[in-house]
Amino acid sequence: MIDTLRGIFELNGFIGIETRAVETGASLLKKGETSKEIYLLSRLQEVTAGEENDTPIDERIGLHFDLTVPLSRYVVEHSGDIAFPFKRWQIQKVWRGERPQEGRYREFVQADIDVVGNGSLPEHYEVELPLVMVSALEALRAYGLPKATVHANNRKLSEGFYRGLGLTDVEGVLREIDKIDKIGPDEVTKLLVSECGADEAQAAACLELADMTAGDGDELRAKFDDLCGRHGIAKDSDAYALASEGVATLAMIVDEAAAIRPGSVIADLKIARGLDYYTGSVYETFLDGAASLGSICSGGRYDNLASQGNRKYPGVGLSIGLSRLVSYMLHTAHATATRVSPAAVLVAVWNEDGRLESNRIAAALRARGIAADVAPTAAKLGKQIKYADKLGIPYVWFPNGAEDKDGAADEVKNIVTGDQVQADRDAWVPADEYARQSVTVGD
Amino acid sequence: MIDTLRGIFELNGFIGIETRAVETGASLLKKGETSKEIYLLSRLQEVTAGEENDTPIDERIGLHFDLTVPLSRYVVEHSGDIAFPFKRWQIQKVWRGERPQEGRYREFVQADIDVVGNGSLPEHYEVELPLVMVSALEALRAYGLPKATVHANNRKLSEGFYRGLGLTDVEGVLREIDKIDKIGPDEVTKLLVSECGADEAQAAACLELADMTAGDGDELRAKFDDLCGRHGIAKDSDAYALASEGVATLAMIVDEAAAIRPGSVIADLKIARGLDYYTGSVYETFLDGAASLGSICSGGRYDNLASQGNRKYPGVGLSIGLSRLVSYMLHTAHATATRVSPAAVLVAVWNEDGRLESNRIAAALRARGIAADVAPTAAKLGKQIKYADKLGIPYVWFPNGAEDKDGAADEVKNIVTGDQVQADRDAWVPADEYARQSVTVGD
Repeated sequence: MIDTLRGIFELNGFIGIETRAVETGASLLKKGETSKEIYLLSRLQEVTAGEENDTPIDERIGLHFDLTVPLSRYVVEHSGDIAFPFKRWQIQKVWRGERPQEGRYREFVQADIDVVGNGSLPEHYEVELPLVMVSALEALRAYGLPKATVHANNRKLSEGFYRGLGLTDVEGVLREIDKIDKIGPDEVTKLLVSECGADEAQAAACLELADMTAGDGDELRAKFDDLCGRHGIAKDSDAYALASEGVATLAMIVDEAAAIRPGSVIADLKIARGLDYYTGSVYETFLDGAASLGSICSGGRYDNLASQGNRKYPGVGLSIGLSRLVSYMLHTAHATATRVSPAAVLVAVWNEDGRLESNRIAAALRARGIAADVAPTAAKLGKQIKYADKLGIPYVWFPNGAEDKDGAADEVKNIVTGDQVQADRDAWVPADEYARQSVTVGD
Repeated sequence: MIDTLRGIFELNGFIGIETRAVETGASLLKKGETSKEIYLLSRLQEVTAGEENDTPIDERIGLHFDLTVPLSRYVVEHSGDIAFPFKRWQIQKVWRGERPQEGRYREFVQADIDVVGNGSLPEHYEVELPLVMVSALEALRAYGLPKATVHANNRKLSEGFYRGLGLTDVEGVLREIDKIDKIGPDEVTKLLVSECGADEAQAAACLELADMTAGDGDELRAKFDDLCGRHGIAKDSDAYALASEGVATLAMIVDEAAAIRPGSVIADLKIARGLDYYTGSVYETFLDGAASLGSICSGGRYDNLASQGNRKYPGVGLSIGLSRLVSYMLHTAHATATRVSPAAVLVAVWNEDGRLESNRIAAALRARGIAADVAPTAAKLGKQIKYADKLGIPYVWFPNGAEDKDGAADEVKNIVTGDQVQADRDAWVPADEYARQSVTVGD
């Protein structure tokens, strides 16, 4: 899966980077937030000397919990060498100190793409990046992934609408709206009233907005204007102007996406994203028939994530939670490797004196790119074939034919089909379907 | 480099595994040794609650410092599912809490291969595994690595010889002999006397053994017997019998290696390896003309690393310190990437209305496996070409020819050579040398 994603990212011109596993406490805990589930590191010597707690958390190092904090640091550190806009992919482990449970790991792999501008960043990346993720997820369908659809929204649209209603705690409203799929609209309505200062009518309007979806820009504009009209948001208000910026971007996204890959991106106005660093487009991605999995690829536009003095580095990025996808593929889609060993051929060994010859046959096959193993011992042939079978190696090669007649031609047997043929170590090739390890899907 | 190594390992039938970054303190600190430079983890919540030091170190988790401890745990955990002998490759980051210095990193990548048997493990793997590493290192010569030679020794040979001399602190002698390259033979002689109970003659004999090398088995046997004769080690002694086992294995290794890959493995009797878990063959690997780098690929045979009740899992393994090799290639061999971006083509954009068409061209190229990027803005053409140049993208694609004449044929320019030709997005291919990112070596 990692190879497949990397292939798609590079095909689209993204540059791969890898960053160290640790960042400083200060970077990981921007704004002094200590509720995050991060792991801090201590050198054993410090622990045994009882000095562990002497260093302030800001100056300690901890394992990164995402690939966005490291990207932000990387861009600032290397800004002099980077050609902007900087399109990067990064697939690495991240760690979160959570209680492990189904679908929640303490160590997992994320696959991220971001594009980061220097000072400014053209809007067209807000449709191009989700489309790259769509084609990446499309490539993963070979391993049992259902069709994925990106659900897009825009923070400016939501904020303008909430302000137009007279609500001021925009972050609070977004945080509650983000809970709709988890706790349902009724509970969210209660929270909007109790936590965000909304009255019943305002809360109902927020829920109405969240219930809105659109497959193209015209539908989005029409539905949104209708909603504003019914809730008294004037077209000449500042709030409507702000919302309109968001509507325009979101309409552009669904229309451009439809032109390039119909059905891949829809406008879904309940998408809120809990994280407060998004400033424009936000995305979540759902798999057909796997709603319980939640969003498997999320992200958005952030204008203020990285900065250096007055210089800002706006970005757009999305992240796939790869470990959860693997779990889905293994346990729900029943994806399995076609074989344990990468080897296509096991070269048999008639007796230990003949091992050198068997090694030479394996070397000849490898020289032509055919992965080959050599039997561990000169055991009875049945035992050697059983070893190949246990590793899923499809071919067993018999030096000097099937009965070790010195000078006889080599033979190779496909132990799946039972076919056995004479074979030249410098010319024979495995059938395509047996050449490489791959993945099969289904029961 | 990682791709290259993985390719060689899989060609040789090794199975890739990846293990979590952490192991328990008990696994990391076998035998209660707390001098290791490891990193322990704490959840932030525990730190802020002041609870960090409450958990005994054995029950805490820490980052792995090598890939051998995780392999040992993995084999025991999965012994029921593994087909033995188990040949596995593993390329991952490891962490050591050292003071960072040139060539000593706190985070670095190791590339390991091991073969692990269930109860027993045939001796032929003791020559096959170093030869796989030789072919892997050979493949890295494309990136500026000099020729590598494996220097092999055998613990039984050394132990038998030391015991034959009357020395009993075998581990102590090995530890001092391991320092020869660092502190020189004179200092080692002093330490053998002061630390290991050797007299001057015994110490001199140990140094004489360490000074011995041999390119084939006959030379090794002759030199060793001569040395034993001169130091009064009788051929019928238990010590000589033990040493002879080691001599036989080492002779087999150099002779078999010479038959398959002449000049790749020599017997070098000063190779000691500080780690006490090796029980037979030990290996270090040196690069021609880069002695200061020390051993870049080390390992050996260990009969007792993993066990489960009475069941032992003997293994042979070697490990490449990849980060130090990368450092050598960058700073000494002057290896550089041929370009920053994986893209072979930048599709120009005449104006934002034409972006969709440029995106379609890029999509057509990508569909045929040609990595393509699209210009970030419809800036002046010179600026777009400059962007391609900064990223090292060799081709710039002009929709509708060089001057945006609607309906004209597309053209593509190689900005390195200046060649510009008409091109069909569904048929054109880049010249081989410009098709992919690669590496060049030299100033």
